[in-house]
Amino acid sequence: MLKLNENYLNLQAGYLFPEIARRVSAHQAAHPEADVIKLGIGDVTEPLPPAVTEAMAKAVAEMADASTFHGYGPALGYDWLRQAFAEHDFQSRGCDVSADEVFVSDGSKCDAANILDIFGAGNRVAVCDPVYPVYVDTNVMAGNAGPPKPGDDSGRYSGLVYLPMTADNGFVPEPPPEDASAPPLDLVYLCSPNNPTGAAATKDELAAWVAYANRHGSILLYDAAYADFIQDPSLPRSIYEIEGARDCAIEMRSLSKTAGFTGTRCGYVVIPKTLERLSSSGQPVSLHALWSRRQSTKFNSVGYVVQRGAEAVYTAEGRTQCKSLIDGYMANAAAMRTALTDAGLAVYGGENAPYVWVGCPDGADSWGFFDQLLTQAHVVGTPGAGFGSCGEGYIRFSAFNDRAKVDRAMSRVVGQLGALSDR
Amino acid sequence: MLKLNENYLNLQAGYLFPEIARRVSAHQAAHPEADVIKLGIGDVTEPLPPAVTEAMAKAVAEMADASTFHGYGPALGYDWLRQAFAEHDFQSRGCDVSADEVFVSDGSKCDAANILDIFGAGNRVAVCDPVYPVYVDTNVMAGNAGPPKPGDDSGRYSGLVYLPMTADNGFVPEPPPEDASAPPLDLVYLCSPNNPTGAAATKDELAAWVAYANRHGSILLYDAAYADFIQDPSLPRSIYEIEGARDCAIEMRSLSKTAGFTGTRCGYVVIPKTLERLSSSGQPVSLHALWSRRQSTKFNSVGYVVQRGAEAVYTAEGRTQCKSLIDGYMANAAAMRTALTDAGLAVYGGENAPYVWVGCPDGADSWGFFDQLLTQAHVVGTPGAGFGSCGEGYIRFSAFNDRAKVDRAMSRVVGQLGALSDR
Repeated sequence: MLKLNENYLNLQAGYLFPEIARRVSAHQAAHPEADVIKLGIGDVTEPLPPAVTEAMAKAVAEMADASTFHGYGPALGYDWLRQAFAEHDFQSRGCDVSADEVFVSDGSKCDAANILDIFGAGNRVAVCDPVYPVYVDTNVMAGNAGPPKPGDDSGRYSGLVYLPMTADNGFVPEPPPEDASAPPLDLVYLCSPNNPTGAAATKDELAAWVAYANRHGSILLYDAAYADFIQDPSLPRSIYEIEGARDCAIEMRSLSKTAGFTGTRCGYVVIPKTLERLSSSGQPVSLHALWSRRQSTKFNSVGYVVQRGAEAVYTAEGRTQCKSLIDGYMANAAAMRTALTDAGLAVYGGENAPYVWVGCPDGADSWGFFDQLLTQAHVVGTPGAGFGSCGEGYIRFSAFNDRAKVDRAMSRVVGQLGALSDR
Repeated sequence: MLKLNENYLNLQAGYLFPEIARRVSAHQAAHPEADVIKLGIGDVTEPLPPAVTEAMAKAVAEMADASTFHGYGPALGYDWLRQAFAEHDFQSRGCDVSADEVFVSDGSKCDAANILDIFGAGNRVAVCDPVYPVYVDTNVMAGNAGPPKPGDDSGRYSGLVYLPMTADNGFVPEPPPEDASAPPLDLVYLCSPNNPTGAAATKDELAAWVAYANRHGSILLYDAAYADFIQDPSLPRSIYEIEGARDCAIEMRSLSKTAGFTGTRCGYVVIPKTLERLSSSGQPVSLHALWSRRQSTKFNSVGYVVQRGAEAVYTAEGRTQCKSLIDGYMANAAAMRTALTDAGLAVYGGENAPYVWVGCPDGADSWGFFDQLLTQAHVVGTPGAGFGSCGEGYIRFSAFNDRAKVDRAMSRVVGQLGALSDR
């Protein structure tokens, strides 16, 4: 009899953002006059930079002419784009990453999900809490997470290891202490600058993870989708700035937030050619080779027009324009930080990341505060509890919006807080 | 200790087309003066239709302006595109397929690979022989194929069921006879019009498969990437033209060949909302719901610009332009059929598909004939044996090229055959 992937039956509720969308739609239907301001889902609002749209328009014209038309491209991406990624995101910062270690993709969500294909069953997988839900749900689908924890209504799974991120550890978890009775972690998802907390790991903090991984043969799955939002020059933008990372880390990057590609779709994965692990029979296996085979077999890269647009992000004009985009969003983040701090809330993140992570006012839980802001202030955040149990009591605001709306939203949120404290 | 997906270690050699590319590159390096004509990989050569590039250019301009910019789209595709697919490819032909049963993707290769995510381990999987290699390799990766068959050098796997396609069955396999001792097939990959043989199944032939699947609870994975090349109006373009198919079939479609999208990337999967199978505990599970969750979690659809280009394929201009593209390629196929038949070869396909499947001259095997044509006639075909053991003794020619090159290639191939018979 046909067998289904019954791991899917262990998935809980819907994906977070569709649930938010459902509540927002219901509110808008009930209050069509309300000027709802969305600081929830981390979707950019500014258009693609001119350098990108000019390159895409030129590429579309090439696709219209037989002499310049492009059919199937290389399955791993065009060399000129892999070269641009390697040069500008790594080599220019002193990281040893070559173009043929870069795999072009249609975004970090896909890469973070698909990377599990090359790993086997039975790995001990660690995720942070709070966490980007894709890491968890894809491990549920792959059978690594098992069923939900009995008696736990926070959404945790029995088979995953959760690394709490709290105000106490600055929202950057440390590697677990050496403990002969606890098996080491095999796969560790790290995201810095962090979604959802906005925290950015220091070199020392990442070095501790690299040392842990190299001691135990773990693989670090390092999601640096927000790397370009780092303002503090002492913070690492890539895990490959840490010595030893080539022996344990896979890094994922995206143009979604850097260059406004959420609706255009391009990102990439880096896997060092030297990264190997042993098969069960003791044979060294190249993870780069496994991923090459995976991508060649299951993927055909992204379209030519999109790759040309991505390449243009790295021209002099493209870099200037993207920096200006990021500066605008980070000014929003700073404005949010100021308004919410002045209103007496505990405010984290937003300094090296486009997310501000805010403690709910006394006694409020995440979804309660979310609903209150939605219905009373017509402002949409993302409930911290939606990212995991350690997110309870927090709400995430995204800096992706235009400044006028951000200011209007903050003034309404602050007003709502005043109304609360007057009760 | 970290576990790898060791199923990958069961994969044999490289993917077929990279191997061909390697041999062609070596030949071109050794003979830089040779005018090599490629009829190997099925990649289109004509540019995108004007309706498509105009729509893409307009969409690029929208992406450059904040008031018309598009960020994240719906994970399953924009409604207007799902509607266009449903209406023009199904409803207009009397098939009961609604827009919300259509899942937009970046191509059939990805869909054919990813669809295995929603099925469990231990299914009895059948593929045709010869076969599009992606069906086999993705089953190897998923652990459904097991190790290569001992003592079999044709590349067959011990865990797959092979359905021979031969001249005797017109290259369309019948369902296996009812046999209480053989467990039924759970997943059956069918591709019509067929890659590589160019055969197209009749309604009766598909009805036999639908009846088999509904008798046994099998799922048919129906790849109709070449549906628009069907010339004979009595042949079905969709499996949903067959009564009962909504209870057993998933259909995959692509714009790659229909509209020249090999380097643009857009296709789709249809899963009827009513298609269910039982979990091991006897609970009915919707395959549509599983795939919705899979796509929402692991994919972010294709970019807005590409989806607008895809939509334009279904405008009146787009349809006329695509028909003209297809007519041109099919005229190439007819010319190849005539030339090769006149030269005394056994010629199949090419009447309702862009592939011509040709018996090698007496005594030649597929790779031998491939090498001979490459080195002596500077013409690239695809060795039939590369698609499976029943492809041995055949070579595939693709009709995707311009007519002058096709005629030149055929004249060289025919000349080479004359040289052969003179020996």
